[in-house]
Amino acid sequence: MNGVGGGREERGPEPGEEPPAGLLEEFGRGRQRALARAISMVEDETPGFEALLDAVHERVGRARRIGITGPPGAGKSTLTKELARSYRQEGLRVGVIAVDPTSPFSGGALLGDRVRMTELASDRGLFIRSMASRGSLGGLATSTREAADLMDAFGLERVLLETVGVGQSELEIARTADTTAVVLVPESGDGIQAMKAGLNEIADLFVVNKADRPGADRLRKELEIMQRIRGGRDEEIDWEVPVLQTVASEAEGVGELLERLDAHFGRLRESGALEARRTDVRVEQARSVLLRRLERAADSQWEERRDEIRRRLASGEASPYAVAAEMEAAFRREMAAGGDPARS
Amino acid sequence: MNGVGGGREERGPEPGEEPPAGLLEEFGRGRQRALARAISMVEDETPGFEALLDAVHERVGRARRIGITGPPGAGKSTLTKELARSYRQEGLRVGVIAVDPTSPFSGGALLGDRVRMTELASDRGLFIRSMASRGSLGGLATSTREAADLMDAFGLERVLLETVGVGQSELEIARTADTTAVVLVPESGDGIQAMKAGLNEIADLFVVNKADRPGADRLRKELEIMQRIRGGRDEEIDWEVPVLQTVASEAEGVGELLERLDAHFGRLRESGALEARRTDVRVEQARSVLLRRLERAADSQWEERRDEIRRRLASGEASPYAVAAEMEAAFRREMAAGGDPARS
Repeated sequence: MNGVGGGREERGPEPGEEPPAGLLEEFGRGRQRALARAISMVEDETPGFEALLDAVHERVGRARRIGITGPPGAGKSTLTKELARSYRQEGLRVGVIAVDPTSPFSGGALLGDRVRMTELASDRGLFIRSMASRGSLGGLATSTREAADLMDAFGLERVLLETVGVGQSELEIARTADTTAVVLVPESGDGIQAMKAGLNEIADLFVVNKADRPGADRLRKELEIMQRIRGGRDEEIDWEVPVLQTVASEAEGVGELLERLDAHFGRLRESGALEARRTDVRVEQARSVLLRRLERAADSQWEERRDEIRRRLASGEASPYAVAAEMEAAFRREMAAGGDPARS
Repeated sequence: MNGVGGGREERGPEPGEEPPAGLLEEFGRGRQRALARAISMVEDETPGFEALLDAVHERVGRARRIGITGPPGAGKSTLTKELARSYRQEGLRVGVIAVDPTSPFSGGALLGDRVRMTELASDRGLFIRSMASRGSLGGLATSTREAADLMDAFGLERVLLETVGVGQSELEIARTADTTAVVLVPESGDGIQAMKAGLNEIADLFVVNKADRPGADRLRKELEIMQRIRGGRDEEIDWEVPVLQTVASEAEGVGELLERLDAHFGRLRESGALEARRTDVRVEQARSVLLRRLERAADSQWEERRDEIRRRLASGEASPYAVAAEMEAAFRREMAAGGDPARS
């Protein structure tokens, strides 16, 4: 085991190959380049990436993770930028992970004129990263959590996760934040739609952004009524889900949002729920990592027989279920024979 | 092996327990109740569901699958309803699968006043089903494909898949349709956003819905320019991605949409690409089924040790990576010992 994990109890299996020499050291010395490289390793599943995550694991847990989620066009990026700016003014080091492919954070030049990122780009205390959807099942939620872990271990004190609040993987990501703000705009439809999209399940705060537009007050009232009817209350931490209004483009309402984010985190910590919920996230993460390992092992077997599988499925001589059952049996035989499909 | 699959080549492993007695027979006799029950089995992963899918597999492949995708609020459900109605008027049997949790198809009474589904509800040639997001990784795309297979095998001739065109799982679902219409509205942001969300990769047609609203022409032109610049052309089947305009609530433009859907399917069939692409989907399906089986096997081991795992992760004595590596080793030992974690 490398560096950081040395003090931990002895255990049998290693989480994989070692991380590249020098990277851990550079990471430990706070080089942004090392953080960028580490996140790329996670995204690309470069051999050794799990050992890297394992090695820095003991440093994870100091950052506060804040989810900013909502439909496309709700102004999440602008709000995220304002939050990042405010935290920077407090002297805190900030990480931003944008999972929305339509986010200006993800887009670089194309939408660069909308959100002026240049003012932030030169700030050494701010690290911005966008995550792309990859092919692997559940890969996005798992690797986004890992990118957040890396930022946390690196010493960033606030990690802002900007995600589109529509879609299975995307809701899963939001669930890993300590506090999630769901951002809606008058145009994004009514409160009932938000509820049905599952947004009320993940919202610790609602933010009605672009609150200077028609319909903003109506949406806020709808959300408030919905909260009362459906129970917008987190009993465990004695928290009433508030509905705030912002005009992110003018930085209006951001101060109150910051206060409420602090208040929510305070409740989490004082009630003891913070640790329990973070443990839930770690348990889910361990399970996802196990499944990713099995997926990798299965895929390497799959690749070997891809042409034959394709031929049989094309001719209709076998169903996908027959093929899957055969492959599972082969996978089991391989394991029983002491082989390791993933590393062969 | 039951019924339908009997003529197939001999093979070793079976895809699981047998489907409930009587269900296959009722399904074969065209009882809607049997179709509904079969889809529920798939959603719930009831023992025997894979055997059921295997048994009906030879009847799959006659339906045309049409994806209707786009951001929330684009009017996908209304358009889907109009397409369903038109196909019914042609005497075709139609299935609708709504994966969007905010869809009126999923919502029943709550939004029932918006889209009057009652006129369709009493039609025996129309089968409507909504699919919910489940916990399992990639589960939504896989089970949605399976629900479409069941409708296809049941004899429905058009299967309309309504999905939110945002999110990883959701784009995956859209990719399984023969033809995908991406529905946008002037309010849903510009064409560049659509492109960045990956929608241009899955669009065989663009539909600018609510075309009577301001900005519709501008959006159409933007999409057309984007198509020219980015190559909105499917060379393999000699297909130029068209940009149509509709006012779904008035059934305007639906006739042209139907023609273009037919034209696209015609190209697919004549070029030979249809079979190749459907085989790609079957290969992906087989791989997903294998991963689902491994996930199930891993989960049953996981459950046995959940408390111990949680305790060790909570105390920080182990990282999620160490836990995953240990569990993988245990999984391998179990298999090597001839055990079967999934069935123990």
